[in-house]
Amino acid sequence: MKQSIDNHPHGGHLTTALTGPLQMIETHLLARQPQIETWFRGEWKKSRAPFYTSVDLRNAGFKLAPVDTNLFPAGFNNINPVFFPLAVQAIQVAVERVCPFACNILIIPENHTRNMFYLESLATLQQVMRHAGFVVRIGSLIDDLQQAETIELPSGKQIVLEPIKRDGEKIQLDSINKDGIFTPCAVLMNNDLSAGIPKILENISQSIIPPLKLGWDHRRKSDHFQHYHQVAEEFAQLLDIDPWLIDPLFEKCGEIDFKNREGEECLASHVDHLLTEIQKKYDEYGVDKPPFVLVKADAGTYGMGIMTIHSASEIHELNRKQRNKMAKSKGGVSVTDVIIQEGVYTFETIGEDEAVAEPVVYMVDHSVIGGFYRVHTSRGPNENLNAPGMHFEPLSFANPLNLPDHNQEPDADPNRFYAYGVIARLAMLAAAREIKEVI
Amino acid sequence: MKQSIDNHPHGGHLTTALTGPLQMIETHLLARQPQIETWFRGEWKKSRAPFYTSVDLRNAGFKLAPVDTNLFPAGFNNINPVFFPLAVQAIQVAVERVCPFACNILIIPENHTRNMFYLESLATLQQVMRHAGFVVRIGSLIDDLQQAETIELPSGKQIVLEPIKRDGEKIQLDSINKDGIFTPCAVLMNNDLSAGIPKILENISQSIIPPLKLGWDHRRKSDHFQHYHQVAEEFAQLLDIDPWLIDPLFEKCGEIDFKNREGEECLASHVDHLLTEIQKKYDEYGVDKPPFVLVKADAGTYGMGIMTIHSASEIHELNRKQRNKMAKSKGGVSVTDVIIQEGVYTFETIGEDEAVAEPVVYMVDHSVIGGFYRVHTSRGPNENLNAPGMHFEPLSFANPLNLPDHNQEPDADPNRFYAYGVIARLAMLAAAREIKEVI
Repeated sequence: MKQSIDNHPHGGHLTTALTGPLQMIETHLLARQPQIETWFRGEWKKSRAPFYTSVDLRNAGFKLAPVDTNLFPAGFNNINPVFFPLAVQAIQVAVERVCPFACNILIIPENHTRNMFYLESLATLQQVMRHAGFVVRIGSLIDDLQQAETIELPSGKQIVLEPIKRDGEKIQLDSINKDGIFTPCAVLMNNDLSAGIPKILENISQSIIPPLKLGWDHRRKSDHFQHYHQVAEEFAQLLDIDPWLIDPLFEKCGEIDFKNREGEECLASHVDHLLTEIQKKYDEYGVDKPPFVLVKADAGTYGMGIMTIHSASEIHELNRKQRNKMAKSKGGVSVTDVIIQEGVYTFETIGEDEAVAEPVVYMVDHSVIGGFYRVHTSRGPNENLNAPGMHFEPLSFANPLNLPDHNQEPDADPNRFYAYGVIARLAMLAAAREIKEVI
Repeated sequence: MKQSIDNHPHGGHLTTALTGPLQMIETHLLARQPQIETWFRGEWKKSRAPFYTSVDLRNAGFKLAPVDTNLFPAGFNNINPVFFPLAVQAIQVAVERVCPFACNILIIPENHTRNMFYLESLATLQQVMRHAGFVVRIGSLIDDLQQAETIELPSGKQIVLEPIKRDGEKIQLDSINKDGIFTPCAVLMNNDLSAGIPKILENISQSIIPPLKLGWDHRRKSDHFQHYHQVAEEFAQLLDIDPWLIDPLFEKCGEIDFKNREGEECLASHVDHLLTEIQKKYDEYGVDKPPFVLVKADAGTYGMGIMTIHSASEIHELNRKQRNKMAKSKGGVSVTDVIIQEGVYTFETIGEDEAVAEPVVYMVDHSVIGGFYRVHTSRGPNENLNAPGMHFEPLSFANPLNLPDHNQEPDADPNRFYAYGVIARLAMLAAAREIKEVI
């Protein structure tokens, strides 16, 4: 299971610059593994895990925290195929709960038709769900799609996008090869609904996973991180650690109009306050780095509308281009509410050229099924690796995330990956509580 | 994932002598995979899968059938460690149902202290359950065990056997290293209870998995295969195939006293009848091999009390030694009831010397987590590979069993392993129905 890292073009193993306090977190996680797993079991009884989730983590050495939780994950093609059996097994458990007696699943993807990275992920998702024993077809929301469209992918796979039809309270696909109308039992959303809920999906009788209210037209990052903050508090108490070690601080601004410079003062004062709070923590832990924050669209995704800020004065110095960039998010939605989030350094690097690596963890139901590193050589440790125009190289995790080894050092690979899986599941638990609130 | 077969000392790949009708079975399984998985989902809703199960299969090329279903599996050390994450994930799902809020598990093993094969399996089981986040200790039923006994294993692992104490309605282990009395939430039986239910386990309040009534003092092979027969009928109907292709015929005799030659006539006539039935099927499918049957203790296990018989006359010709051997089973229990089961040829061979290979499939909850081949060079294709004094070489499956590939031939490795997983799950379903009946 080691081939990915060893065969990586950068040649080297992952290294973590500052291992002190993280090793401390990992030591705690390892020592209390039975309590942690028992705690999670109890939590999943209270709040059902989402069908699938990906979580972007930041590993600063002294701090390991989630920075984004995606309920419509892409990037499945970046997961090591040796872990597909885990995904298959978890999908079977998850679908058992939703559609015990049916086998037709419809995936509704993003409307991208040229983004090969996205389409490869979609093809992988479809493939894994087919391995799990489902009949899986892809229904597109693209307006002018009149008939099934086959797209050949660089990997040699192909996907077929089909127009969705509405028949009363159900959505369906037309027959292909005379095999009859396709009526799904469940609709798996892989479209984050930034543009709102499409009319064709309104009030259908089929199960929609995750619920439509979790789309970015409804969801707010600040709600998620408020839930995460609560989860981190509870978990830190269980482990008897400082919650800050796993929780990024954040604040929320009311209405901001970047174009017309309204709300700028409010934003600047929040930035200033948050930087001060982070500095206090840095002083407490002897972190010799400047604190920074990220200003993000509260309803945003895809790394659009994100700024890295080191001082409140930068807010006043934004030029027109920067302000325009913040004023629009994915799908042309105006940014009004923003979240100011503690920036967490990425101190994991790969190879001699010290490429920055950011872990992304994938879960199906409440099982961790794999993940990958976003690896980028030309970005600094305080920059967002999931930003527009950004190019990263994916590096599949070579290790499973559920085989912690008490006979190895706390920061040995199996234990570090276990730590990733724990923190990612905490973010997923926050999302589960979000879902419970809206449905 | 291919290393095991490729690195095998016999050097070659597995080959199947007669692939015709099996390829037909595999083609059917592959084509109806979504219906099969949906059917299983429905069945697991009706009958909960056992906590763990191993199934011995026989692959005759023209027929693929289970010949033994073990509810107290050993041999975990023979599973490819790359599949441990699958076992961990399945264990977490299974325990969630039994003990959502606790983490202490007690394993009660067989009383073997010198069978290193068994103890290595026990150590692996403990290790995998620890990965899954449980505090797992081993409580022994050995009568004269006064204090914890550590046994060093050839693999370098060690296991600690501890005496079980009873306190009111609970069983416990003493404190070690002053960590307090150990009170398990659940007791996982890895002892098949051939000698009956030990007094110390009677009426305890903790969950016992699987239920004590599934021990060999209560359980009958004929009950299992009667359930399997029903499962096979239903499944064959779903697939529109002849159920015989997946179902070993069997008959049951009443009381037999081998020592005093009572019931011999009855046995001989059943053997004769069954051989005739098998011959009819062989004629139908053009199988050019002599039929044979196995006479097994109906309550037996561990391959004791098993005879291979090719003609009814052999029953009358048993010598004293053979009769004595049949008269006693594991733990000195007298054999009275016997089952006469259709023998299924093993036509899977490995390497140039054509070593006979018999697949064993492992499941936790309703997930297939791996398996291995029993490989034996000096035995014939009609002999039982799990017999007393028998030496087999384990060969871990290199493939997962849940990644069937529609783009490959029906008898390509991923699809053959999928077929194994399906037939093994049918046997597990029969066991689930058995359990449902007794609890």
